[in-house]
Amino acid sequence: MLKLKILSIGKTKETWLEDALSEYVKRLKPNLIIEWVWVKDNAQLIEYADKEPLVICLDPAGQMYTSEQFASFLEQQWEKGGSRLTFVIGGAEGLPQQLKSNYALISLSPLTFTHQITRLVLIEQVYRTIEIKKGTQYHK
Amino acid sequence: MLKLKILSIGKTKETWLEDALSEYVKRLKPNLIIEWVWVKDNAQLIEYADKEPLVICLDPAGQMYTSEQFASFLEQQWEKGGSRLTFVIGGAEGLPQQLKSNYALISLSPLTFTHQITRLVLIEQVYRTIEIKKGTQYHK
Repeated sequence: MLKLKILSIGKTKETWLEDALSEYVKRLKPNLIIEWVWVKDNAQLIEYADKEPLVICLDPAGQMYTSEQFASFLEQQWEKGGSRLTFVIGGAEGLPQQLKSNYALISLSPLTFTHQITRLVLIEQVYRTIEIKKGTQYHK
Repeated sequence: MLKLKILSIGKTKETWLEDALSEYVKRLKPNLIIEWVWVKDNAQLIEYADKEPLVICLDPAGQMYTSEQFASFLEQQWEKGGSRLTFVIGGAEGLPQQLKSNYALISLSPLTFTHQITRLVLIEQVYRTIEIKKGTQYHK
């Protein structure tokens, strides 16, 4: 079973986002276990990230992918990480430099998203990855 | 007062999306009137788009922008369109060729989004545009 941890600062309070994320978590359940970890500041973000086997940070300066490229990238990373993978989403000020220097950076869009939308776009792309892998028509 | 029409195929059924979009519509209300128009097929999409003063289509092959560039682009377009602007979001098969050939194309990301997420990302960027214009700290 694949595992994905999403590490970020500040818990989500929006009901609509909770509902949307729950929907994807439910759909992903047969193939992937998602764990959301909320930390309180950058120091804790670094501390937690450094314990993980494989970390990818979301950053505006990161590599951009099409959904198919993202799916291939994710599959490679899961393989490298022994089926475990951690995404880090920074706070309002962005990621601390230490994380940017130490880990792979990816970007979801040249546009700036709120953290809420970042979480949603990320989980939908992860769901899309699983569907691409399974060969379903979801992503067509 | 600025006006924005969003023309797309198939009405949204997800409660979480309705909640999220309503939140942005409410926040935008003092500055911008949003009108959602749902059509049933591509023929109707073309018919409705052709009646609008200024149309921008969302398409994977479109121009990508940072949020600041998107804000400048939107302001220019509103000026050209006499404060009225229409975005077109295609159906599951993408936009009909006739719209792609006739109107400006923009893309929100190299990733493929669901129509639901496209609507949400678009409205959040429009909100971000208004905040950038007003000089608030929202987009920082």
